[in-house]
Amino acid sequence: MSESSIGIVTAQKIAFDTPIILQNGDTLPRFDLMIETYGTLNDNASNAVLICHALSGNHHVAGRYHASDKYAGWWDNMVGPNKPIDTNKFFVVGLNNLGGCHGSTGPLSENPATGKPYAADFPVVTVKDWVKSQAALADYLGIKQWAAVIGGSLGGMQALQWAIDFPDRIRHAVVIASSPKLSTQNIAFNDVARQAILTDPDFHAGRYAEHGVVPRRGLRIARMMGHITYLAEKGLGLKFGRELKEDALRFDFGVDFQIESYLHHQGDKFAEVFDANTYLIITKTLDYFDPAADFSGSLKQALAKVQANFLVVSFSSDWRFAPDRSREIVRALIQNGKNVSYAEIESLFGHDAFLLEDTAYMDAMRTYLKNVKV
Amino acid sequence: MSESSIGIVTAQKIAFDTPIILQNGDTLPRFDLMIETYGTLNDNASNAVLICHALSGNHHVAGRYHASDKYAGWWDNMVGPNKPIDTNKFFVVGLNNLGGCHGSTGPLSENPATGKPYAADFPVVTVKDWVKSQAALADYLGIKQWAAVIGGSLGGMQALQWAIDFPDRIRHAVVIASSPKLSTQNIAFNDVARQAILTDPDFHAGRYAEHGVVPRRGLRIARMMGHITYLAEKGLGLKFGRELKEDALRFDFGVDFQIESYLHHQGDKFAEVFDANTYLIITKTLDYFDPAADFSGSLKQALAKVQANFLVVSFSSDWRFAPDRSREIVRALIQNGKNVSYAEIESLFGHDAFLLEDTAYMDAMRTYLKNVKV
Repeated sequence: MSESSIGIVTAQKIAFDTPIILQNGDTLPRFDLMIETYGTLNDNASNAVLICHALSGNHHVAGRYHASDKYAGWWDNMVGPNKPIDTNKFFVVGLNNLGGCHGSTGPLSENPATGKPYAADFPVVTVKDWVKSQAALADYLGIKQWAAVIGGSLGGMQALQWAIDFPDRIRHAVVIASSPKLSTQNIAFNDVARQAILTDPDFHAGRYAEHGVVPRRGLRIARMMGHITYLAEKGLGLKFGRELKEDALRFDFGVDFQIESYLHHQGDKFAEVFDANTYLIITKTLDYFDPAADFSGSLKQALAKVQANFLVVSFSSDWRFAPDRSREIVRALIQNGKNVSYAEIESLFGHDAFLLEDTAYMDAMRTYLKNVKV
Repeated sequence: MSESSIGIVTAQKIAFDTPIILQNGDTLPRFDLMIETYGTLNDNASNAVLICHALSGNHHVAGRYHASDKYAGWWDNMVGPNKPIDTNKFFVVGLNNLGGCHGSTGPLSENPATGKPYAADFPVVTVKDWVKSQAALADYLGIKQWAAVIGGSLGGMQALQWAIDFPDRIRHAVVIASSPKLSTQNIAFNDVARQAILTDPDFHAGRYAEHGVVPRRGLRIARMMGHITYLAEKGLGLKFGRELKEDALRFDFGVDFQIESYLHHQGDKFAEVFDANTYLIITKTLDYFDPAADFSGSLKQALAKVQANFLVVSFSSDWRFAPDRSREIVRALIQNGKNVSYAEIESLFGHDAFLLEDTAYMDAMRTYLKNVKV
């Protein structure tokens, strides 16, 4: 029973021709969700797992698009035959969320009211909106109840929101490297990222496409800064140290250190492929997430009616969503007498650890999901 | 014996008409240093204290320029009559470093070779260069040996370099919230700050003055991001939490949270007053500082010949230059059998704590400096 990739996969665009009312009061008259599925839905549809993505993720969770495809999906190490999220057992669904830039309805999509892309007019969506749209997707797929909803970072927030909003439609919530709400520092970093984009002269109030440009500089800065916060100081030190790119210091403003070269590469790559309006929206989605806010700030009360069992996972060196933040969720669940397992994984690799191969982490996921009845 | 401000102070520009050879090989044919002095130099010039500034500091350490001056110098809580750095006892010298933008020779100064401002042609200076220029300043002032050289952050690096480069010209080095060299993460943040400036369309390869503009956007982003790293997550949380600026979430990309408003204010203010070329240079000065590099990476060897006594101070929540970094200095001094006191101050306010009022911190400084013989 060796692990292997799910192989060649195909994305599908699912059209929803009924309106969806969003948390800000806006209505989208219709929407598309881009999805991928792996494995087979069983007869009573009891083996479905939803994978929710984080800031820059999408529906392409596992597998490759063709035989010579260089890159697999973003969680290919986690999802596949005999992998922790085992596609021999589960029917796994990945989607690109509303507001995204990978095929689901978002700023790049046509606004039916104008016949032109939404661009800056696409509303700021929330985790609650996403869960609502994912419930419509579940209906479409004939899934009354998810065996599990799983996500890291912002993805974990969606799993948490699922357990709150649809307590009888989710048996297990797996919340990884996440938080019940952003800290002031988290919001501050998101603000700087947005300001870099908003003040880029090529942003044109979000209508950059009409001007035939892209706010590359802003996106690049946002991503470079974000990247630092996804990594831990120690891991960064081990990987790059103070290693120079050339033999000696340059004494100018070119690249001296390898870490600079790495960050520029990350920033450049991201600015080529990601939509700036989507980036702005999703950082707001993060900032706004705070399920306790509807319960006078009590996370305990917010979680009082959840029925799902929980696995909460955190990483020791994650300073963006530190273990403390996961423990807040665990504590609130325990206070409610809910069923929760908690794994705090030793790691040098910060927030990004949730995407990386790590034996203790993989084992925790594998063991928990093995015990999920389908 | 109550504490009081030093009162009205005046800056002086000191002209040095002998060339200075810099670490990169360049020669400045002449240079000015902007300074302020407080207190009186005693007859044998044994009571002189040099205050070295950090990234955005300057020579205006204490006091005010006129009776209605709204702002005192940047370390007015530390320097003055009966304050920890007591101007009744010490003759205190503050200066703006070479490459600065507050009157000392830097990018804004005239390049004698062209008759125009140096702008982008001002060389990247190092902590070693600064210490060399500060030694010329000491000569000018008739100070053979400093009673103490004191600085926080980048200022502490200068105190450390003084002890290494001029062991017989410094009796005490006070190194606060500093580091023997930047970590990979530190360099990474500096890189993003520089990239924000370098890619601002108003930067014009550093010749923005000729175009009648200033790369405000880049400076603003750099400062906002920097500011987050100077503060600690806990302190930020206590001060701003998730407090909204208005009654409700906006669902657009305007300011929702108070922390955003605060950061914008800090960024805007800084972009008005600070020179972008200076910012670029000084972040490189920080990146390049690594006295152990000349000794096969051994900080112990780098410090083998220091004669100064040391006070090293760190702050518990400082994650930019964490206590660990200060302990590296302490350890290397102890390994050499040098005289070192170490104070690790509990604080919620991160790296910026070195500029703030704190009883334990003030007491540590006061006590140490009381025992400095003059």
